[in-house]
Amino acid sequence: MPDPLKIVVVGGVAAGPKAASKVKRLMPDAEVILIEKGALFSFAGCGLPYYVSEVVHEQKDLMATPVGAVRDTAFFQKVKGVRVLNRTEAIEIDREGKQVRIRALESGEESWLPYDKLMLATGAGPVVPPIPGVERKGVYTLHSIEDAERVKASLAEGRVRNAVIIGGGLIGIETAEALAAKGCQVTLVEMLPHILAMMLDFEMARLVELHMQSKGVRIMADTKALAIVGEGDAVSSVQTDKGQLPAEAVILAVGVRPRTELAMKAGLAIGEKTHAIVVDECMRTSDPDIYAAGDCVECKDRITGQPCFVPLGSTANKQGRVAAINMCGGHDTFPGVFGSTVCKVFDFCVGRTGLTEKAARANGYDAITVLSPGADRAHYMPTAKTLMIKLIASRATRKLLGLQVVGPGAGDKRVDVAAMALAAGMTVDQLAKADLCYAPPFSGAMDNIITAADIARNKLDGQMASLTPMEVRAKLDAKEDFVFLDVRSPGEWEEVRLPGSMLIPLGALRERSGELPRDKEIVAFCKASLRGYEAARILLGQGFTDVKVMDGGVAMWPFAKEK
Amino acid sequence: MPDPLKIVVVGGVAAGPKAASKVKRLMPDAEVILIEKGALFSFAGCGLPYYVSEVVHEQKDLMATPVGAVRDTAFFQKVKGVRVLNRTEAIEIDREGKQVRIRALESGEESWLPYDKLMLATGAGPVVPPIPGVERKGVYTLHSIEDAERVKASLAEGRVRNAVIIGGGLIGIETAEALAAKGCQVTLVEMLPHILAMMLDFEMARLVELHMQSKGVRIMADTKALAIVGEGDAVSSVQTDKGQLPAEAVILAVGVRPRTELAMKAGLAIGEKTHAIVVDECMRTSDPDIYAAGDCVECKDRITGQPCFVPLGSTANKQGRVAAINMCGGHDTFPGVFGSTVCKVFDFCVGRTGLTEKAARANGYDAITVLSPGADRAHYMPTAKTLMIKLIASRATRKLLGLQVVGPGAGDKRVDVAAMALAAGMTVDQLAKADLCYAPPFSGAMDNIITAADIARNKLDGQMASLTPMEVRAKLDAKEDFVFLDVRSPGEWEEVRLPGSMLIPLGALRERSGELPRDKEIVAFCKASLRGYEAARILLGQGFTDVKVMDGGVAMWPFAKEK
Repeated sequence: MPDPLKIVVVGGVAAGPKAASKVKRLMPDAEVILIEKGALFSFAGCGLPYYVSEVVHEQKDLMATPVGAVRDTAFFQKVKGVRVLNRTEAIEIDREGKQVRIRALESGEESWLPYDKLMLATGAGPVVPPIPGVERKGVYTLHSIEDAERVKASLAEGRVRNAVIIGGGLIGIETAEALAAKGCQVTLVEMLPHILAMMLDFEMARLVELHMQSKGVRIMADTKALAIVGEGDAVSSVQTDKGQLPAEAVILAVGVRPRTELAMKAGLAIGEKTHAIVVDECMRTSDPDIYAAGDCVECKDRITGQPCFVPLGSTANKQGRVAAINMCGGHDTFPGVFGSTVCKVFDFCVGRTGLTEKAARANGYDAITVLSPGADRAHYMPTAKTLMIKLIASRATRKLLGLQVVGPGAGDKRVDVAAMALAAGMTVDQLAKADLCYAPPFSGAMDNIITAADIARNKLDGQMASLTPMEVRAKLDAKEDFVFLDVRSPGEWEEVRLPGSMLIPLGALRERSGELPRDKEIVAFCKASLRGYEAARILLGQGFTDVKVMDGGVAMWPFAKEK
Repeated sequence: MPDPLKIVVVGGVAAGPKAASKVKRLMPDAEVILIEKGALFSFAGCGLPYYVSEVVHEQKDLMATPVGAVRDTAFFQKVKGVRVLNRTEAIEIDREGKQVRIRALESGEESWLPYDKLMLATGAGPVVPPIPGVERKGVYTLHSIEDAERVKASLAEGRVRNAVIIGGGLIGIETAEALAAKGCQVTLVEMLPHILAMMLDFEMARLVELHMQSKGVRIMADTKALAIVGEGDAVSSVQTDKGQLPAEAVILAVGVRPRTELAMKAGLAIGEKTHAIVVDECMRTSDPDIYAAGDCVECKDRITGQPCFVPLGSTANKQGRVAAINMCGGHDTFPGVFGSTVCKVFDFCVGRTGLTEKAARANGYDAITVLSPGADRAHYMPTAKTLMIKLIASRATRKLLGLQVVGPGAGDKRVDVAAMALAAGMTVDQLAKADLCYAPPFSGAMDNIITAADIARNKLDGQMASLTPMEVRAKLDAKEDFVFLDVRSPGEWEEVRLPGSMLIPLGALRERSGELPRDKEIVAFCKASLRGYEAARILLGQGFTDVKVMDGGVAMWPFAKEK
């Protein structure tokens, strides 16, 4: 009998345990050793904000299987047949000799572990920005269970009234909600012009900011944190270029960086743009006996074909499985990602897949965009909630390029549908014919994404000339002479209005169009913009020549409204 | 100037108004006349059960736009530019002369309407089964707003204690819930062996039946309604082949039939199998100047290529748009359907797309199936709910063939993802790599559909031999000599057990496998069946030869359990 296959996996959070377990299922004879630096492992890192907010009550909930078994070393040995060495660091790879040097952190003892296949699942670590004062007490990252315990302990002490979050990405946003839920006065500081800058375009992010503000979170975009100021060793405020913010707790959430020291020391290829470990579709590094997966590797963007770094637990699990199959001599591939992301922000579901408009243009696409708000199920159902969609498509190929969702409605469903459309390379014409399941408690007869696709088709077919709210805002700011035509009902007008607009309700437009000048640009809108579109079609039918529709209507206007 | 295009649309519920409005947007000059037999039109037929249960409060909610404008004749004239003749019947088409004869129902006056293009959107009508007594007072269908008002009036009178629903399809199920919500003791009578027979396979339907029973609805499958019995002219009971059921109200919900009298009289092609109007991809009937869309036409099943009849408001809207574009001289096509369907059943979301296992086998596919229960989001989130999936794939091509969902979890999302995978012709290998968006409040790191696809891959790759619960039930019934091995924890075992099973918890299996006979078939299972699968891999690794996994575990066992 040949010697059993020796597999060493470095890293015990997501991709590592997944791969180790899968290897044992594929090859029960294999010797699988999992090395983990921390004491705790195989925990749900994405659940940490919910543990801080006590939506998730117990630490063990984050480390248990769905039936409540805690994934500790005994569990892995007994159930998975995987030997876990935790509190153990992998410090060097001898690629020639196919062995990895490990150090037990408690005893300091070192030894060499031989491997047939090695897998790196070293993950990513939080970036600590080079700001004076980051070492102060009360300054946290939120990346490990230990981090979460520290934040929870400081909250439990009752000292934290003001919290400042530095960084408006996913972790920053989720932590803002968690701390607000715990009664803190939260200020979020973001260097870029808007939050969630990698995920959303300006107008969509702005709608999220407005929602967070309505929940009491102060958003300071375009703001640099300059120093963390304190009395003694504890933080007392954050100095920014827009003023000083009191803070008894500061969360650093400026992003994560792949952990690649071990790979770099071993001379494995590292991505120039991503700084993550380069792998092929089989999750093999530049050394054919070393695999890597999860937050430490770079991915392929399936639209642009470019390398990207999108660390996510979902991707890590899929990649871990692919690596396991290939390490066992099988064949599987990971095709890359569309950057599908979702995030709960108070009452909003915020999501994205594919390219943002900004990314699409940066990649040379002639993109058309649609803003489409609507009820996420039959509008007469009491459970219906608003869902605001931005759809991006290629003018040249009519293919979907990306989708963003914001609002209380079930946006995650539409992001997933769009992700599948992207995987299939669908045009908006094909997407508009998607056979999505329909019943009033779950969707409208025309699903939101189908409506958005149909609007895109109207635009591509020249049926609908449109302006974005940003373009209209610029016209207003430049005091351009145009008619900003609201075609909603008088009751809706009474409630809220857009600046500089005039009202002719759609039902009266066929008769009252004489009130409109024929020599000026007319920009029609309503609440969503179906009526705006109908108004434009009516006016064009009556011989008006320069009529446009403003995308997204009052519902998605990302600027101040008049009340 | 040429004469404006004359378009006549017959039928005012879904496809008709959609097409009429779209034509006017495309060709503001066109003369569009919509003929509707009823007084009310453009209403949300799918909302009727929710109007009966008073989830939807007002009749007008079903006829209003999202901003509350009631879609009456004045609305269509003013806003859409469409002339609606309601209470008017189209009684004859003169194809040669391109005119349609209409009769005003109130005056009896008849006239001929000329058309350039005619569109039939005559819908479908409820089938009234040929049972003695269907004409009695208290016997209803639920297809129109008037039907709903009659049912509501009888409920309001307080006379209805027992309601019998004849037919366990979508409308029957939704009406059962509505009447139960109004305090009726509901019995549902279904002729076939299980409810939702067109939508679900046996074991999935059985899980729905169990849920309905837990909510107090009595399900009598395999039962024929023979007569509706009464005292005087009012119903008092329903006679079935399994006994007499008291009933002060009876709902006939045995299905709908396309309304094709007008089309047949005009000699248009009618589908042999579907009895619905035959249309091409452009929604054109056998007469190039007559289009048809919605519940009166047959569709193409996109998997089998066969004609099918799947009347749904979502499909009607898409088809109406396609017909409108083509009537205006443009080009658009409707590719067919996958039979995507969803239904709320008390706390359950019940859905399907693609072929059921039964339909797949009937169409000659060598199908493999997966039953996979799990939490619909991160299992540690308090909002997580159970979602039970059945996945059907082709052994030959590895392509997805269908998906069914049952349970309180967000099944509609997974049905939509599967519908997109079907549209793309994806294999389960491709589906398993879908870049679905992930965050704990919305999904698990491995989404349910990805887990199901991975299980399918394990089966296709020979990693997992499995039995369905029905196959195991048959073994038990035949008193076969095999080991039915439960590998859950003692605590889970204490709560509920499957008949004839023995317990060795997974964590103890590596040591205790000696207790198991090596010469007998072993069928392992757990709650879901991941642990059952791991148990099988462990035993196979130890040299056991005949080890299988029972799909779906305790969670999806559709028969009686021991408590």
